[in-house]
Amino acid sequence: MTLCKVVGTVVATRKDEKLTGSKLLVVQEIDLDCNPKDRFYIAVDSVGAGTGEVVLIATGSSARYTAVTRDKPVDAAIIAIVDIIEVGGQVKYRKGQSA
Amino acid sequence: MTLCKVVGTVVATRKDEKLTGSKLLVVQEIDLDCNPKDRFYIAVDSVGAGTGEVVLIATGSSARYTAVTRDKPVDAAIIAIVDIIEVGGQVKYRKGQSA
Amino acid sequence: MTLCKVVGTVVATRKDEKLTGSKLLVVQEIDLDCNPKDRFYIAVDSVGAGTGEVVLIATGSSARYTAVTRDKPVDAAIIAIVDIIEVGGQVKYRKGQSA
Amino acid sequence: MTLCKVVGTVVATRKDEKLTGSKLLVVQEIDLDCNPKDRFYIAVDSVGAGTGEVVLIATGSSARYTAVTRDKPVDAAIIAIVDIIEVGGQVKYRKGQSA
Amino acid sequence: MTLCKVVGTVVATRKDEKLTGSKLLVVQEIDLDCNPKDRFYIAVDSVGAGTGEVVLIATGSSARYTAVTRDKPVDAAIIAIVDIIEVGGQVKYRKGQSA
Repeated sequence: MTLCKVVGTVVATRKDEKLTGSKLLVVQEIDLDCNPKDRFYIAVDSVGAGTGEVVLIATGSSARYTAVTRDKPVDAAIIAIVDIIEVGGQVKYRKGQSA
Repeated sequence: MTLCKVVGTVVATRKDEKLTGSKLLVVQEIDLDCNPKDRFYIAVDSVGAGTGEVVLIATGSSARYTAVTRDKPVDAAIIAIVDIIEVGGQVKYRKGQSA
Repeated sequence: MTLCKVVGTVVATRKDEKLTGSKLLVVQEIDLDCNPKDRFYIAVDSVGAGTGEVVLIATGSSARYTAVTRDKPVDAAIIAIVDIIEVGGQVKYRKGQSA
Repeated sequence: MTLCKVVGTVVATRKDEKLTGSKLLVVQEIDLDCNPKDRFYIAVDSVGAGTGEVVLIATGSSARYTAVTRDKPVDAAIIAIVDIIEVGGQVKYRKGQSA
Repeated sequence: MTLCKVVGTVVATRKDEKLTGSKLLVVQEIDLDCNPKDRFYIAVDSVGAGTGEVVLIATGSSARYTAVTRDKPVDAAIIAIVDIIEVGGQVKYRKGQSA
């Protein structure tokens, strides 16, 4: 999975009918210090994520295996909201603290 | 999904028979300020997109899950026409306004 | 799908038995001006493509959805021979004219 | 598969229900001399890997084919703990020796 | 498919049980002049390839469609041993000759 931060939303009225009701979020890839990387994705939210939260996204066919994306034309889904990232014995991110 | 702009079309008479009737569009990846990136795709249109529109494409196996691409040898499909992109509380794109 | 030009062939006697009879072509990715990019693929031909032709390839699982590649260990297939590429109202490529 | 080193962990309370009980590890891609590369993944552990170990990860749909990830929204899984890497007749890595 | 050269082996005692008996080889991507590129893969061998041989690998889900990898958590498999690469009417590689 890829570590991302939710930074925005996309509205699309005209879309594949299976996407009706799906929340489309803009998520930006981040590094292990929570700094933004160049790459971003438009991902379907399956866990109630909000702007500013650090999340995990699953890409490719695995994005279709959440409760809300099965059999939909979706190649990126938010599958978890991250509470803690620990690397090398050091806490790099803790939800609710400045990141 | 990946944010793209429709920039052209491809005509192909000789093709896998399952592609008969599929509209093939040239879509160029864009960044969150709607500036073109280097990467482009030839995608099957499933939503009636036209040149100049900002769209979402699904890639990989998920491109086969639209109403018009099921079981076809297609690895990129336009699944939505974007109306609004909002990032960091700011509207970055609104359909019908200059982009 | 990815725009490529057929530039060569690969011969492989010892291979997975399901590949028997598959024609393996070397295809080089091109940009919208038909200039070669760094990336190339070895793709199974499903449409009778020949050297010098501009083609579309499907990659990943979608490469297994042509008439000749079903259930084969193939991750790139030529699915169409391109006749015309039009970008921004301009014909960038027309088959049979110098490219 | 991709050669990685386990460098950390991720805790996520709110997540797709199918991920309950899955151990999420931070794995960093390494080169054949075991030097870290820029890319990292959050992978589900299927073999009991620990920090500092060199592992193989499977990505994409194949990540769902381990004993613990079937049908889950997971695009990266640790599938093996590496004991020895040999390249060009030379042992590049042996578990338990300084790497 | 991707053109690679077999350069080494990986030994892993602790691994997903479905990998028991699979031979794991280190393969390095090469260009059309057989020069090594930066990228390498750990691939399951399905054709009896040996060190120094030029091979084709299939990646992603297609790697699970060989005789020995079906339903296994494998995202890269050697599917053919290359005898000849011809590009632009010129033989770039012939097995058994210096490469």
